[in-house]
Amino acid sequence: MPIITLLTDFGDSDSYVAEVKAVLLSRVPTATLVDLNHQVSPGNLRTGQYFLSRAWPRFPLGTVHLAVVDPGVGTARRALAAEAGGHAFVAPDNGLLSVLPHDARFVSLPVLRDAAPTFHARDVFAPAAARLASGARIEELGPGVSDPVRDPFPAPRVDGGTLVGAVVHVDRFGNLVSNVPCDPVGRTSVITVAGEVVGNLRRTFADVAKGQLVAYCGSAGTVEIAVRDGSAAEQVGAGVGALVTAQLAGR
Amino acid sequence: MPIITLLTDFGDSDSYVAEVKAVLLSRVPTATLVDLNHQVSPGNLRTGQYFLSRAWPRFPLGTVHLAVVDPGVGTARRALAAEAGGHAFVAPDNGLLSVLPHDARFVSLPVLRDAAPTFHARDVFAPAAARLASGARIEELGPGVSDPVRDPFPAPRVDGGTLVGAVVHVDRFGNLVSNVPCDPVGRTSVITVAGEVVGNLRRTFADVAKGQLVAYCGSAGTVEIAVRDGSAAEQVGAGVGALVTAQLAGR
Amino acid sequence: MPIITLLTDFGDSDSYVAEVKAVLLSRVPTATLVDLNHQVSPGNLRTGQYFLSRAWPRFPLGTVHLAVVDPGVGTARRALAAEAGGHAFVAPDNGLLSVLPHDARFVSLPVLRDAAPTFHARDVFAPAAARLASGARIEELGPGVSDPVRDPFPAPRVDGGTLVGAVVHVDRFGNLVSNVPCDPVGRTSVITVAGEVVGNLRRTFADVAKGQLVAYCGSAGTVEIAVRDGSAAEQVGAGVGALVTAQLAGR
Repeated sequence: MPIITLLTDFGDSDSYVAEVKAVLLSRVPTATLVDLNHQVSPGNLRTGQYFLSRAWPRFPLGTVHLAVVDPGVGTARRALAAEAGGHAFVAPDNGLLSVLPHDARFVSLPVLRDAAPTFHARDVFAPAAARLASGARIEELGPGVSDPVRDPFPAPRVDGGTLVGAVVHVDRFGNLVSNVPCDPVGRTSVITVAGEVVGNLRRTFADVAKGQLVAYCGSAGTVEIAVRDGSAAEQVGAGVGALVTAQLAGR
Repeated sequence: MPIITLLTDFGDSDSYVAEVKAVLLSRVPTATLVDLNHQVSPGNLRTGQYFLSRAWPRFPLGTVHLAVVDPGVGTARRALAAEAGGHAFVAPDNGLLSVLPHDARFVSLPVLRDAAPTFHARDVFAPAAARLASGARIEELGPGVSDPVRDPFPAPRVDGGTLVGAVVHVDRFGNLVSNVPCDPVGRTSVITVAGEVVGNLRRTFADVAKGQLVAYCGSAGTVEIAVRDGSAAEQVGAGVGALVTAQLAGR
Repeated sequence: MPIITLLTDFGDSDSYVAEVKAVLLSRVPTATLVDLNHQVSPGNLRTGQYFLSRAWPRFPLGTVHLAVVDPGVGTARRALAAEAGGHAFVAPDNGLLSVLPHDARFVSLPVLRDAAPTFHARDVFAPAAARLASGARIEELGPGVSDPVRDPFPAPRVDGGTLVGAVVHVDRFGNLVSNVPCDPVGRTSVITVAGEVVGNLRRTFADVAKGQLVAYCGSAGTVEIAVRDGSAAEQVGAGVGALVTAQLAGR
């Protein structure tokens, strides 16, 4: 029962995801297919990276992740397979996999002549994912690649005793998810978002009154800003890219 | 091949559902996961109750239902597991499970300290659902609860010989689904919605001309109002909460 | 592990799809269920035909396809099962299955009296699909039908040396998918859409500059028109039904 996850920007208004699944099940009939997400906005690498980095480590060892957010579809960009942390990945060589651990290994996938140039997910990545799910190692799929495209996910910087990061995702509930890790943030640190003071890190929404802004350590281990029973995105008027600051512990 | 269904208000624009599935598959690799629904509007208990009550009894005996619509996420509300009708359930203690049969049994789930306060679906409910899907009884998961929060789904009342209920859901097609059960409604009863006379209960859409309002017994056994080849919600200008009346048989 | 695909116009804001899956899993607990698509706009047979025709042949032999796009729900239209190309199908008799090969065989499904007239997907088609997934032949399900409703998917016509077709689908990326097959189109043919000259068939988006219109052979083997890093639907202002022309090879 190998597990294959699917992360794309294909949405839900086409047959594309189903065609990819048809190829996977034709080659690995016992596969368990899991939709990681398909609503990444077209070509949005950052959101693809964010979802992939959050979800992949929680799947069982041996899971294969097909990740196709591909603004360069139909260009000569390489197709990759990768292994990291006991998981396998297939994705275009456009930086989407830059969120993998530093010891990740990469190979280049062959693109057969009869592959539709505009649908590598179906014709290149799905067959490769099926082979990996059947037990192949990435080295059996193509030659090693030592220079995959690197497009690191935005990291916060330290400015004096302050961590300066940014909102990297707004979730369905209007919560502002930052890239500022919780661990080094001090208990007396004042969190700000888009220049607005939020206050100290609280444990959860319930620590403030309804309608109040609250900063807390989110479920990905980074600082989030929410409004209890409301939308921080609307109340603050901030979105992806807005500055988030926090003081380091001991300051 | 245990079956686990997932009902949440997480939508499709985050990695949250995938993270819950990752936890489930990590602990029960052979599980069959079924999305019951994820488009419940944030915190809408009534819609969660409605979907859960319609769907759960149709799944096989032994199915585990993870249901997380949780306006109180991050508060001290309890986390529950339940058994009823040969099915198991995990859900926050906020009334979502008030649609279970009256002989349902409840236990309280422990909330470990390392659970993300804002993501109990992943860190509390998914591990519990996995144990239930692996054969555990709810009594093995925590102490019994005799006073789960009760928030009963709205029921119609009898006013003289008339059943007075309400629209409880508007479906994709604009059909107005009421909570008025069909069985006691008389064949000559005149159905009204939002004060507008619809007519007697017909068998189906096709019993009226295109564009006409029609009342019929819907697929959940309650009175529905539709417009053939149209939207009753738009034509009547009514939504959830609009009054629906019908005379009892023999009146 | 029989595979059952589901194609409906039920959307994602109801419990309908889950109820159909509950019936399928109750009868075939080992089934692998695959969502082909549920976002067909209500009653849109053409989109249903398009998605079905693209996806079904890519699934493994023996797959059962439940396809319910049914503007005539609740009328006396027949319910069908079909076999073609080693696959099985259940669908209303409204032309949805007109995209099957010409040697497809059809039978009529019984509609039991306790089936909800407005939810045949759950009460008629799912039980039939379950029987087919369990190994039944269509002939075991009902009497043969020699005159299923035919509503052929629009085909291009030849006008002199020119193929005259139309846009049959606009995908998430704004690409205009036509019904003009690529094979007979000449290399020097000038493609037009909605009266606008696009140019010769190129291999892929990357063969033109950003923002430029490009015609190419799409992943279904028909001519598509796109804008590199943009939306052809927006730029051309065209949608389903817009004329697409191409000269035959040798002209």
